[in-house]
Amino acid sequence: MTIEADELRRTDAYWRAANYLSAGQIYLRDNPLLHEPLRPEHIKPRLLGHWGTSPGLNFCYVHLNRVIRSADLNMIYIIGPGHGGPAAVANAWLEGTYSEVYPHVTRDAAGMARLFLQFSYPGGIPSHVAPETPGSIHEGGELGYSLAHAYGAAFDNPDLVVACIIGDGEAETGPLATSWHSNKFLDPVGDGAVLPILHLNGYKIANPTVPARIPEAELLSLLEGYGHSPIVVAGDDPPTMHRAMAAALDRAIAEIAAIQHRARRDGVTGRPRWPMIVLRTPKGWTGPKEVDGRPVEGTWRAHQVPLPGVRDNPDHLAQLEAWLRSYRPEELFDADGRPNADLLALPPAGQRRMSANPHANGGLLLRELTLPDFRRYAVPVDRPGTTFTEPTRVLGTFLRDVIKANPDTFRLMGPDETASNRLQAVFEATARVWQADRLPTDEHLAPRGRVMEVLSEHLCQGWLEGYLLTGRHGLFNCYEAFIHIVDAMFNQHAKWLEASRKIPWRLPVASFNYLLSSHVWRQDHNGFTHQDPGFLDVVMNKKPEIIRVYLPPDANTLLSVADHCLRSRDYVNVVIAGKQPALNWLPMEQAIPHCARGIGVWEWAGTDDGADPDVVLACAGDIPTLETLAAADLLRRHLPDLRVRVVNVVDLMRLQPDTEHPHGLSDRRFDMLFTTDKPIIFAFHGYPYLIHRLTYRRNGHENIHVRGYKEEGTTTTPFDMVMLNDLDRFHLVMDVIERLPQLGPRATYVHQLMADARLRARAHTREHGADAPEVAEWTWPH
Amino acid sequence: MTIEADELRRTDAYWRAANYLSAGQIYLRDNPLLHEPLRPEHIKPRLLGHWGTSPGLNFCYVHLNRVIRSADLNMIYIIGPGHGGPAAVANAWLEGTYSEVYPHVTRDAAGMARLFLQFSYPGGIPSHVAPETPGSIHEGGELGYSLAHAYGAAFDNPDLVVACIIGDGEAETGPLATSWHSNKFLDPVGDGAVLPILHLNGYKIANPTVPARIPEAELLSLLEGYGHSPIVVAGDDPPTMHRAMAAALDRAIAEIAAIQHRARRDGVTGRPRWPMIVLRTPKGWTGPKEVDGRPVEGTWRAHQVPLPGVRDNPDHLAQLEAWLRSYRPEELFDADGRPNADLLALPPAGQRRMSANPHANGGLLLRELTLPDFRRYAVPVDRPGTTFTEPTRVLGTFLRDVIKANPDTFRLMGPDETASNRLQAVFEATARVWQADRLPTDEHLAPRGRVMEVLSEHLCQGWLEGYLLTGRHGLFNCYEAFIHIVDAMFNQHAKWLEASRKIPWRLPVASFNYLLSSHVWRQDHNGFTHQDPGFLDVVMNKKPEIIRVYLPPDANTLLSVADHCLRSRDYVNVVIAGKQPALNWLPMEQAIPHCARGIGVWEWAGTDDGADPDVVLACAGDIPTLETLAAADLLRRHLPDLRVRVVNVVDLMRLQPDTEHPHGLSDRRFDMLFTTDKPIIFAFHGYPYLIHRLTYRRNGHENIHVRGYKEEGTTTTPFDMVMLNDLDRFHLVMDVIERLPQLGPRATYVHQLMADARLRARAHTREHGADAPEVAEWTWPH
Repeated sequence: MTIEADELRRTDAYWRAANYLSAGQIYLRDNPLLHEPLRPEHIKPRLLGHWGTSPGLNFCYVHLNRVIRSADLNMIYIIGPGHGGPAAVANAWLEGTYSEVYPHVTRDAAGMARLFLQFSYPGGIPSHVAPETPGSIHEGGELGYSLAHAYGAAFDNPDLVVACIIGDGEAETGPLATSWHSNKFLDPVGDGAVLPILHLNGYKIANPTVPARIPEAELLSLLEGYGHSPIVVAGDDPPTMHRAMAAALDRAIAEIAAIQHRARRDGVTGRPRWPMIVLRTPKGWTGPKEVDGRPVEGTWRAHQVPLPGVRDNPDHLAQLEAWLRSYRPEELFDADGRPNADLLALPPAGQRRMSANPHANGGLLLRELTLPDFRRYAVPVDRPGTTFTEPTRVLGTFLRDVIKANPDTFRLMGPDETASNRLQAVFEATARVWQADRLPTDEHLAPRGRVMEVLSEHLCQGWLEGYLLTGRHGLFNCYEAFIHIVDAMFNQHAKWLEASRKIPWRLPVASFNYLLSSHVWRQDHNGFTHQDPGFLDVVMNKKPEIIRVYLPPDANTLLSVADHCLRSRDYVNVVIAGKQPALNWLPMEQAIPHCARGIGVWEWAGTDDGADPDVVLACAGDIPTLETLAAADLLRRHLPDLRVRVVNVVDLMRLQPDTEHPHGLSDRRFDMLFTTDKPIIFAFHGYPYLIHRLTYRRNGHENIHVRGYKEEGTTTTPFDMVMLNDLDRFHLVMDVIERLPQLGPRATYVHQLMADARLRARAHTREHGADAPEVAEWTWPH
Repeated sequence: MTIEADELRRTDAYWRAANYLSAGQIYLRDNPLLHEPLRPEHIKPRLLGHWGTSPGLNFCYVHLNRVIRSADLNMIYIIGPGHGGPAAVANAWLEGTYSEVYPHVTRDAAGMARLFLQFSYPGGIPSHVAPETPGSIHEGGELGYSLAHAYGAAFDNPDLVVACIIGDGEAETGPLATSWHSNKFLDPVGDGAVLPILHLNGYKIANPTVPARIPEAELLSLLEGYGHSPIVVAGDDPPTMHRAMAAALDRAIAEIAAIQHRARRDGVTGRPRWPMIVLRTPKGWTGPKEVDGRPVEGTWRAHQVPLPGVRDNPDHLAQLEAWLRSYRPEELFDADGRPNADLLALPPAGQRRMSANPHANGGLLLRELTLPDFRRYAVPVDRPGTTFTEPTRVLGTFLRDVIKANPDTFRLMGPDETASNRLQAVFEATARVWQADRLPTDEHLAPRGRVMEVLSEHLCQGWLEGYLLTGRHGLFNCYEAFIHIVDAMFNQHAKWLEASRKIPWRLPVASFNYLLSSHVWRQDHNGFTHQDPGFLDVVMNKKPEIIRVYLPPDANTLLSVADHCLRSRDYVNVVIAGKQPALNWLPMEQAIPHCARGIGVWEWAGTDDGADPDVVLACAGDIPTLETLAAADLLRRHLPDLRVRVVNVVDLMRLQPDTEHPHGLSDRRFDMLFTTDKPIIFAFHGYPYLIHRLTYRRNGHENIHVRGYKEEGTTTTPFDMVMLNDLDRFHLVMDVIERLPQLGPRATYVHQLMADARLRARAHTREHGADAPEVAEWTWPH
């Protein structure tokens, strides 16, 4: 027994206070201290919120506070069941942080009344732990990502302990189920610690949870199999549970300290067995035991609002009053509603408060990346389209030096694809983190490193979110098709950023950077399942303020874009780039202004001499740019009098009106580039509809004819892929001719030539299993 | 030791044959039997495919064949590392199935040459296990879903054993990590068995895998924690490994039989501890040990093509020849390339062959659902818009009787939301499947049931895919926002269906039906994280042939749509419906033809008397329909001379041109509904761009003004949600007026009235925490 009687009493009082404040938020719009008997008009008209998980969250909170004080810990708290918003808010208010960031919510009766009323109320605050909640980096609206966020926060924060509660069924989700293995990627020397608390209160919304209903031996076997040393705290008698939880936390913190001591000071290597806690309590603990003759505490009926009828049902009202009074608010708060001295003295002070820990407001800790001059990595380009480079391989050299220059604030995540995506130069500077066993045949594995590879896009995404939200930098490289695996996580992170921008005390964090390679046009070898450019369509649904999409057509533009993205804040940047040898178009001195403009005419590729063109060939993406340039070349040869303008788009947001997106072009500039009345053949990297969606308000939109991926593909050759989708150079020329009937018989002849060229290309592919050299090795002729 | 020496010899020969055929597919375009010395021109120009996993897949295949024969098992084989396509194809060819479904690929030298050439070749077959592969229901292009598919196949197939190999890192993915818990949902009486084989060959693409690099005791603890009884088979000496694998499989099959016997004949209840196998072999086993002085067998270098330079590098060519000859093809195939008698005699016959098992071509086994007449569940509607019903609650009564009438071919999946989505009438007919422990407080849990609830959208999706692809029926109900969790799985399933439609021997299967409720407009209580209608944008990127989207506006239309979806084949049907009390618009006799047409004018709601309207109010979705009807009512009252037409859209695909989608309206019919020159105010359930995307080719598209979700939301009230997004009735009226400047001062006054009404509504919400009765309880006046 490690908790003294007096401390136990104060701990329990604090827990009661937090529970009282949690229930109060769900129910009360007036009479916050129950100075009067409870009447229907004190009750909110619409009862929203989740009670079931809240007492458990509060229980952990007060006990974590205890060990923060006793061991002077630097700790944050990730609340997986984020629907327990009342608990997080209650504790932030008790600790004083709430009133510091929201001065109108004072730590007194008036403030308490505001605290209660605003919860889950129009114009108030969300019902979940949210960006609005001090101390949080994790919303938990969509269950599954708490533990990955916790690890992301702990990486490169050797003094931080991240307590992470997993509850209300989150352990059943796939992302959480694999997150346990994050301990194979945590370095006890350079990283902090994660303390998982598996909160088994028995039920999720309407059903029991699996981990709560397997034999305890099986559960412990599972958790030991995850590499943990579990400590079980189970029961429902508060004094007993306080003692057990205090002992468990003392032990867990001591084990963490011992592990870190052995690793850091004694140099003990090898993966430690980290402690964790299994907390079994009733759902809705201390709430109504029964309502209308049916059990509530300890069942799924406690999940949301356990007494639903309080405004109309006097029995429910009386039961609510008895419940609230069971916490003895008169002992907890003075007549003016201020927490009493015992309560005020209990939590840690200043930045040690979990609600005020700067790691939970990462912008406070954000340091600028030290970026090498990206121009140094430029590929020399004497003439456009005559030399081949693998763009991501060049980017790898830049990232290598970013890693060298920022040894503890930048990480590169990827699902086992860093080398496949040709970024392997980074391994000259660092290794892949790997705390599991190693063999002599392994390469670039080490207990500590800047590259994190695991075959789980969920973990890559979740780790990087946690890392960024605690004030660091990074990049996630992924096969384009499989980034859909984290669509939902992207949505949630985007929503977090959208909401955070409106909260003055949340400082900007580094942007989330995606590098999507091995993209749709070069998955000819893996086939149809690997061909999906639709992530952009998901991304585009989020707020324009935070969304950026870049399609650099070659190595130098990729470097310029990457440098820009790594410097940005509070965005989600999506960069799509090729890894295969591809033609270099722009020398760096042209790449930089082209990327800064985001869109521009490539005069050297066109034949309109800056004057009014007959047709505009637009392109976005590396392969569409290649095919467009090849089409422009064919047009120049076969229809030399045709005035062709080539427009290349790097920054996709430029296509939107400036009223829709901060990067949008004005209509005037758009019209200058695209004309208002000439045919536009637009070769696009993704599904063609996206271009229509971005441009449907533009003048002359009806002249835009888009070619893109139309869900045709299989295992074949690169040029066959573009032919299957009518994006190939020959088809682009045919598209031009079909839209210019005035061109006459010469054009009709050229159209037939192109159709023949397609047939020949297909026949060659079938016969030789590879593309003909004239397409595979085509270069821009001068 | 359970395998005889002669059987061991024949087993090994068969394995060598499969390995030979696997390597041959990757490398050879000629000289398939090595009757001549290998020359560069025998080698494919482009070497594609994945060798590393293939020998392990073949090893399992031949040993599974052995137990199929010895125990007369009905077994299918799910190959998680589906990039091992050569192995699946090799075995199908050896078993004769390949030549049965593709007669031009004969089981002789000519056929073998075709088999080799076609693999991963333009115009040939995919490099992965694919719909083209006989015996497969699982592509595995995107790792993570094998085990969920295996369980889906096993449900309600009591005689089936589903062997499922998990390898090459798939165990690190989130979906797979939680799939292990599927055994808590498998009934040993009514369901078949799943035999997981965790294939630890050490590496994924470029890295070791976590389960391969944790101590074996920890791994076994993990697998026991998952509820399994693991059997380890480890080594690299083929004879030893054959004996060990045979013994392991004999034991596993015996344990499965014993479990089923105890449960089925002895009535033993309680969750059994199912066997599973851990298979440790080198990656690329039997392939080149070293290439260019670096280890290959047993390392990640064996993952794809272990000898990359065979066409140009004579050493590599010689090494390839030695490798291929190490299988002694001359002992395996006769002079004409036919497998020798020993090989022909080894696999099971007919439908016992895993490549020919009808469960892997579910359309063969598909039985029509017995559907009750959905009209019987109709809500009486005397006058439109005057009574309230919860649509999904009504659907629940229909689904209850679907379940009753189809006790072993229909399942309802949901992530703990069946009751929350108001489908709880189904519990009158069935229970939630639950094989874990139960408590007296539980409700509707039983070892056997038709409802499957687990807090993992991945499992719901994966189970249902496996269930449908083996010839059964089902529906997945989910919160709308969180269906994004399975975007990637939807993509893969859609691609499977797209490819399957082109394969004559694959018969149609039941459609995948999504019911998305708790949708964006009624997540006012959970807030911003629960508000995302973007799944439709993901869905719309797939081929029109297989995509259907329905937005029934009330209970009777929902019933009609649901009946239609349950009868359909080879589609993905997405149905979005409300669960909150909502106005009933159509009696069943009108709902049926309205749903059949998918789009139509609601004459009773408009004021254009069937003549030329001044404005068209269009709507799709329950809340947009409500707001549109309320706007029509306001217009009728305030601007009685205005001719308003109301168009309701149930089948979203109707909006596309008939050249784009089989359900698309002709331009003529579209113009008749929407006019070509009048303003169209379109109130849409989702992100507004989707309507532009569907209609951008239509006449008068520039007149369409869409209101939808524009990513504004928080915890507030239902009407505040529509106001935040300018979708409310008042704003729709303002939109109409702004587009009809000719209406004059009266309209200007009404515009102001509407703006005032919005302010009042917002003020009411802020003051009372609830919507004003005049909007919350509004009904259609007659």
